[in-house]
Amino acid sequence: MSQLDKKSEGWSALFSEPVSELVQRYTASVNFDRRMWRADIDGSLAHARMLAAKGIISAADLAAIEKGMAQVAQEIESGAFQWKLELEDVHLNIEARLTQLVGDAGKRLHTGRSRNDQVATDIRLWLRAEIDAIGLLYVELQKALLALAEANIDTVMPGFTHLQVAQPVSFGHHMLAYVEMFSRDAERMADVRRRVNQLPLGAAALAGTSYPLDREMVARSLGMDGVCQNSLDAVSDRDFAIEFTAAASLAMVHVSRLSEELVLWMSQNFSFIQIADRFTTGSSIMPQKKNPDVPELARGKTGRVVGHLMGLLTLMKGQPLAYNKDNQEDKEPLFDTVDTLKDTLRIFAEMVGGITVRREAMEQAALKGYATATDLADYLVKKGLPFRDAHEIVAHAVKAAVSHNVDLSELPLSVLQQFSPVIEKDVYDVLSLRGSLNARNTLGGTAPAQVRAQIARHRTRLG
Amino acid sequence: MSQLDKKSEGWSALFSEPVSELVQRYTASVNFDRRMWRADIDGSLAHARMLAAKGIISAADLAAIEKGMAQVAQEIESGAFQWKLELEDVHLNIEARLTQLVGDAGKRLHTGRSRNDQVATDIRLWLRAEIDAIGLLYVELQKALLALAEANIDTVMPGFTHLQVAQPVSFGHHMLAYVEMFSRDAERMADVRRRVNQLPLGAAALAGTSYPLDREMVARSLGMDGVCQNSLDAVSDRDFAIEFTAAASLAMVHVSRLSEELVLWMSQNFSFIQIADRFTTGSSIMPQKKNPDVPELARGKTGRVVGHLMGLLTLMKGQPLAYNKDNQEDKEPLFDTVDTLKDTLRIFAEMVGGITVRREAMEQAALKGYATATDLADYLVKKGLPFRDAHEIVAHAVKAAVSHNVDLSELPLSVLQQFSPVIEKDVYDVLSLRGSLNARNTLGGTAPAQVRAQIARHRTRLG
Amino acid sequence: MSQLDKKSEGWSALFSEPVSELVQRYTASVNFDRRMWRADIDGSLAHARMLAAKGIISAADLAAIEKGMAQVAQEIESGAFQWKLELEDVHLNIEARLTQLVGDAGKRLHTGRSRNDQVATDIRLWLRAEIDAIGLLYVELQKALLALAEANIDTVMPGFTHLQVAQPVSFGHHMLAYVEMFSRDAERMADVRRRVNQLPLGAAALAGTSYPLDREMVARSLGMDGVCQNSLDAVSDRDFAIEFTAAASLAMVHVSRLSEELVLWMSQNFSFIQIADRFTTGSSIMPQKKNPDVPELARGKTGRVVGHLMGLLTLMKGQPLAYNKDNQEDKEPLFDTVDTLKDTLRIFAEMVGGITVRREAMEQAALKGYATATDLADYLVKKGLPFRDAHEIVAHAVKAAVSHNVDLSELPLSVLQQFSPVIEKDVYDVLSLRGSLNARNTLGGTAPAQVRAQIARHRTRLG
Amino acid sequence: MSQLDKKSEGWSALFSEPVSELVQRYTASVNFDRRMWRADIDGSLAHARMLAAKGIISAADLAAIEKGMAQVAQEIESGAFQWKLELEDVHLNIEARLTQLVGDAGKRLHTGRSRNDQVATDIRLWLRAEIDAIGLLYVELQKALLALAEANIDTVMPGFTHLQVAQPVSFGHHMLAYVEMFSRDAERMADVRRRVNQLPLGAAALAGTSYPLDREMVARSLGMDGVCQNSLDAVSDRDFAIEFTAAASLAMVHVSRLSEELVLWMSQNFSFIQIADRFTTGSSIMPQKKNPDVPELARGKTGRVVGHLMGLLTLMKGQPLAYNKDNQEDKEPLFDTVDTLKDTLRIFAEMVGGITVRREAMEQAALKGYATATDLADYLVKKGLPFRDAHEIVAHAVKAAVSHNVDLSELPLSVLQQFSPVIEKDVYDVLSLRGSLNARNTLGGTAPAQVRAQIARHRTRLG
Repeated sequence: MSQLDKKSEGWSALFSEPVSELVQRYTASVNFDRRMWRADIDGSLAHARMLAAKGIISAADLAAIEKGMAQVAQEIESGAFQWKLELEDVHLNIEARLTQLVGDAGKRLHTGRSRNDQVATDIRLWLRAEIDAIGLLYVELQKALLALAEANIDTVMPGFTHLQVAQPVSFGHHMLAYVEMFSRDAERMADVRRRVNQLPLGAAALAGTSYPLDREMVARSLGMDGVCQNSLDAVSDRDFAIEFTAAASLAMVHVSRLSEELVLWMSQNFSFIQIADRFTTGSSIMPQKKNPDVPELARGKTGRVVGHLMGLLTLMKGQPLAYNKDNQEDKEPLFDTVDTLKDTLRIFAEMVGGITVRREAMEQAALKGYATATDLADYLVKKGLPFRDAHEIVAHAVKAAVSHNVDLSELPLSVLQQFSPVIEKDVYDVLSLRGSLNARNTLGGTAPAQVRAQIARHRTRLG
Repeated sequence: MSQLDKKSEGWSALFSEPVSELVQRYTASVNFDRRMWRADIDGSLAHARMLAAKGIISAADLAAIEKGMAQVAQEIESGAFQWKLELEDVHLNIEARLTQLVGDAGKRLHTGRSRNDQVATDIRLWLRAEIDAIGLLYVELQKALLALAEANIDTVMPGFTHLQVAQPVSFGHHMLAYVEMFSRDAERMADVRRRVNQLPLGAAALAGTSYPLDREMVARSLGMDGVCQNSLDAVSDRDFAIEFTAAASLAMVHVSRLSEELVLWMSQNFSFIQIADRFTTGSSIMPQKKNPDVPELARGKTGRVVGHLMGLLTLMKGQPLAYNKDNQEDKEPLFDTVDTLKDTLRIFAEMVGGITVRREAMEQAALKGYATATDLADYLVKKGLPFRDAHEIVAHAVKAAVSHNVDLSELPLSVLQQFSPVIEKDVYDVLSLRGSLNARNTLGGTAPAQVRAQIARHRTRLG
Repeated sequence: MSQLDKKSEGWSALFSEPVSELVQRYTASVNFDRRMWRADIDGSLAHARMLAAKGIISAADLAAIEKGMAQVAQEIESGAFQWKLELEDVHLNIEARLTQLVGDAGKRLHTGRSRNDQVATDIRLWLRAEIDAIGLLYVELQKALLALAEANIDTVMPGFTHLQVAQPVSFGHHMLAYVEMFSRDAERMADVRRRVNQLPLGAAALAGTSYPLDREMVARSLGMDGVCQNSLDAVSDRDFAIEFTAAASLAMVHVSRLSEELVLWMSQNFSFIQIADRFTTGSSIMPQKKNPDVPELARGKTGRVVGHLMGLLTLMKGQPLAYNKDNQEDKEPLFDTVDTLKDTLRIFAEMVGGITVRREAMEQAALKGYATATDLADYLVKKGLPFRDAHEIVAHAVKAAVSHNVDLSELPLSVLQQFSPVIEKDVYDVLSLRGSLNARNTLGGTAPAQVRAQIARHRTRLG
Repeated sequence: MSQLDKKSEGWSALFSEPVSELVQRYTASVNFDRRMWRADIDGSLAHARMLAAKGIISAADLAAIEKGMAQVAQEIESGAFQWKLELEDVHLNIEARLTQLVGDAGKRLHTGRSRNDQVATDIRLWLRAEIDAIGLLYVELQKALLALAEANIDTVMPGFTHLQVAQPVSFGHHMLAYVEMFSRDAERMADVRRRVNQLPLGAAALAGTSYPLDREMVARSLGMDGVCQNSLDAVSDRDFAIEFTAAASLAMVHVSRLSEELVLWMSQNFSFIQIADRFTTGSSIMPQKKNPDVPELARGKTGRVVGHLMGLLTLMKGQPLAYNKDNQEDKEPLFDTVDTLKDTLRIFAEMVGGITVRREAMEQAALKGYATATDLADYLVKKGLPFRDAHEIVAHAVKAAVSHNVDLSELPLSVLQQFSPVIEKDVYDVLSLRGSLNARNTLGGTAPAQVRAQIARHRTRLG
């Protein structure tokens, strides 16, 4: 009689009483870890095929396991599968059902493995698939941003530093800053994937196993990049979950920055953009409201993912080797991080397509704040002044313009010349928004020609 | 026609399209905030009664609202209530159903309030009830620890610093250290409760309302300690959620410390205690294992709660006034913190009662590590030596004992006298474990008399 | 010969080699913990006086210790004191110098105590003084905000939710929201102080001591509220540091929210305020810039303090009793939190006084965004319509006004009456900014009368 | 007159008053950022050479700048340089001194750049050098662990899961688990380096510049892997600092796990190892103590680094583009993370070499806890039983052995056969520690042959 049949009486013959119901609820993970069922079955099948190939189980056993697992998979997909809390987790639930279906062959499946290496394998397989899905969403979001950028290469907005008007920039250029961020996120995620895609199976409980397993065969059949080389590390390592969550946190920080800007730009004092109604909601009391719920909520969800990262780091801190039950707490934060990131990327990819740009408002705003003051300084430098002297001269000019409540470009030439005799009529070219924009025509600059080139580069990169 | 009736067509007449399904799922909270339904109804009834008392709605309207809410409550309790995602949250769901049941009276309920002050009120009411439940669990856990302490006043164990044997302590005394921690947690939670138990209702959307509300009447009828005095603060403040989660984090840190010790003490090299089988589980591969799953998992859950605290702080950082949608993200971490803390306290209160103490093993361990060396130094001080000189003399004596692989109490008097001539035969009294224990008889010390007094004090305190 | 004299040869006679220089640098704390020197001396003097009162040391010894400590204090204040890394921390440095000055009496000072209870006492004494200093700064900041509020009771600005114009509010009322936050912070800090102000001294290493100490006498003479009741807890507890840092984190979150608004309001598109030049800086390249460095940096420093809280929680997680060296890592985050909070509060108290309000710009902004739409809905309710119906009617009216690009107050009566026949000429009173403001005249609302009353209440409270 | 000359009067001519002294201290970074001085000079020289190559400044100007910078570097190295708080940061301090030395050429250095791109460049150059230094420390630490592993390939210790004795493992194998972790850390850091090593210079304030810079030339001359492709992103991106700190946090988590084990193993109830005296310290009160200060402190410092990660994520959350002053808060946590990680790796590399292994104690401990129970189950499987049945049979056998207080290997054959008739005399081979160890001879297992192969692999990898 297998110990799984009598778990309601005691964990095994060694236990004098069953696990208390309170403990069962506190320690069971099946309510959340069953989402890994397909990874669990895939891992088990790869293990069983290797066991058969090495002669550790018979071909008949393998056939029975394959047939049984097919039925288990079908039951889970159809919703007919009965998940049992007293069987703790997705792994024991599936194994117990398999054994019910195919008898002794099922009991042989666990030969040469332990739940410790099994669960580590399952999470990695599951997470690898999610990373691939996230990779596609990064592409979608970047493409949406590129489309918006392309439509706004020549849209002038005030570039801000310290939220003060700094220099005119192309709205398309501004959008490309986010393309850079999300492309780094994608690259980072690809690095994470390499470290996720290593096989723990074969580490058994912690020390390896006495069966002549072929771990590399299992790794190959599961499409993994390699085999975890130390059994103690294999079962206790959760670096990959932390690293993934750190990468997700950075992505959410980027989302939060974009969200902050969208909320700002939708505010009446900016009115730079509108977001399509389907991405906004109203107020229960104020009939005039259209609220940018999606970016606000996304900004808020940054805290959620960062919190999960902190939770995971705290979890692992100070744990002695090898596996400890603490590790079960890796799953919920990881699952929620994946869900949050995917939902957020998906909704942003859609929402970016629903942004209407108010060019006139952006351009008006760029005319405030003496955005071309740097251009005047550069003009003076090109006339031979050292930059630091030019800077000080322009500060005087701005002060005068402020006191007259006009833009630099509105000061008469004679007034400008009071600040520096080298100023000539051509100064007005550099003091215009478009003049300023076009001038910044070096690699990575905001000049339309550069923006256009960057869009082309990203398009090629994304395929 | 009320705007709630047509939400599937658009948030209000102002919206040209309905909220997209993706957005609906991303922004709706009804799946998790419906657990606050009773607080929502209580708050609404208190609001309605005040509206009637002030003549803002009629007595007939109030009667209809009361009748309708009774039915809504009954439907929710019985499971018959149909929660709708397109109605976003618990508040709109209940209000829409009420209006379906009682017509115009239902539409008048929202007079003089907004979802912003309504949700803030609901969370506070809900959290206050949970804090009270947690208070009882703190008492239960302290009582369980006191019972264990009382049974082990005279049980000697090695007290550790740096996990090195330091001085003998009473196991009862050790348990009382945790009683101190959890009593501080309870006191802290009582402070949090005062700040939770303030009424936001009446702040309306953000600015107060033009109806002559009597907010103090509402506060009194809901048993609250006071009224939030600034409407902008009332709707945007989430300090109480953060402060609660910080208090919960500290409690979980205490749980993690106790857990660490339980795991250590169950380890074969210590074998200081056994935990009842119903709080342990076995291994899928190693037939001899009994694992302390509960303390390990509790230790792991510390990260979860700390992560929620970090998430909430990140959430609120840098938000302009007043309410922003980000705030909706306060609920899931708060709910999960409450659940985790309550489950953990409950299971620990039970598990502590299932601990078997192995006195012999503890006492044997106390004999290692020269635990009475400080007593020898104190003995020398009482004979007139300055403490720092005594410390150095004993270091020499310990060195000699180490080299002979014996305890200090096993060194002959003649050998001890080589280190200091003031040593006499009575030295052996202070070198025994019980002599050492009994000597620490000042307030807060480990002497059995002190431990007994502390237990009595705690018993009185807990009632 | 005292062991402190020969630390360069080995920690004590028990050690075969001195601590390596690398280890010395890694483990020594004197470079940062010497800022607690006065608390260390105060604690030592209280301890010595009690030892003398109990006859544990002689009156002559006490006199010598008092005299020696006076010189030590003078040397430290004057900068003449030679801090030594090999003496590890502030405690051993002071004790070693004292012994150099007064001989055996100095060696007797450590009787009945340990560094474990000494350091815990020192931090608490030090932190208590800092909490008192912070308390005064909270008062200063609140007073500065009250002065700004009082000068702007009648200044109308747009109140925002979701950063969308919601309803008109008084700028004074807005400032009072922050007074509420900082008053909660002060109250919270007072709660923390009670738990900080408990005496660990007398717990000795971990188990209490064999000397007949009078701990309550020491507590009284140090002005403490009580005595830590369990020696193991006394030396290992760092709750107070965590609780303080959590309270500081919340205060910094409030600072970050105010900072976010100041930055926003200084942005050209808002231009609601100016900050005095002495609180701003320029750009190395853009001559026209005045950047709100202080609020930006303060917003950034929120992360710093939240990070310290995270660090401290991680530090304590899973530590077995009693004292472990890990705890030394409590000091730097605690010190930096105190410094950051104090500097920030001080600079904000000053900066708030340097804010110039641009009333015209605020009022203009309030006219955008249909801020009085709720007032129209309330008007309809007072004419007998259910609130939900009124809400929908106003949504239609706003839609019409938007399409004509006018405010609600600019729609002719005949047009307004198309949405509801109950609308009469008096509607224009409720559609004005001041009409809206004055209408919100319930407790905590934005009506000038309420704001005035709140300012008076706060003034009384702050004394 | 350059604006740097008159900073004490006002930031520039635009400012009506100087920055207040309080603000100066609050906002200045020169006290901590001057450690980047060499990176600042390297970056400036690369910029100047490119300016000259492109004809933007003259060859004479370049020569003057090179000569001046050589002197500045010499002054800083010798300690003669006068750092000034009113010059804010390392960048303005160096530029102001340069200009003092070489006049107008110095004022031309800032042509086509801004502090925003300059500081981003400096941090990246500085961090790249530190990453390289950390890379070498990872190698040192791994080599120390390998040496310890090699000396203990055949040392048997109990492998733990849940801190319960699980299966015998080689101590060498256990050490290799940490080699895996630190090798992952090194690999991760190499990924970070790629993203650090990108050039922001040329982005200027935020929009690029009107000078015909050759950014790729600058990148090449500074040994960078590429150029930041978007100017807004270039000046506002701090991903690399966060990613570095996340990688450092993981490394510290690994250190904390090793520390936890070292502390445990030094505890008297384990006594598995001794750490050389030079890595331990004593107690001020307990003369017998030798405390593992270094691993304890390292474990504690994990919180510090994790706290910095949290601080940095909070810092960046919700920041609008482009540069905001908040970003200045990136430096202290980054610097402290680098210092902490480097110090910790260095001290661990040394300390690991000072570990003495007590083989006897380890082996004795492995004999407790029925460590070979899995081997008995595997034995039964090889005799034809399904694994799950074998597991249950062994549970019965262990129960019997526990009740007789003997090891499985001490049960007579006749007793063993009562549990299963297939058991024969050869069972005793698998029940021995070395039998168990040798049996786990698959890739990554604990068999000495595997451990030896892994050591060889690592040696080759590390070169």
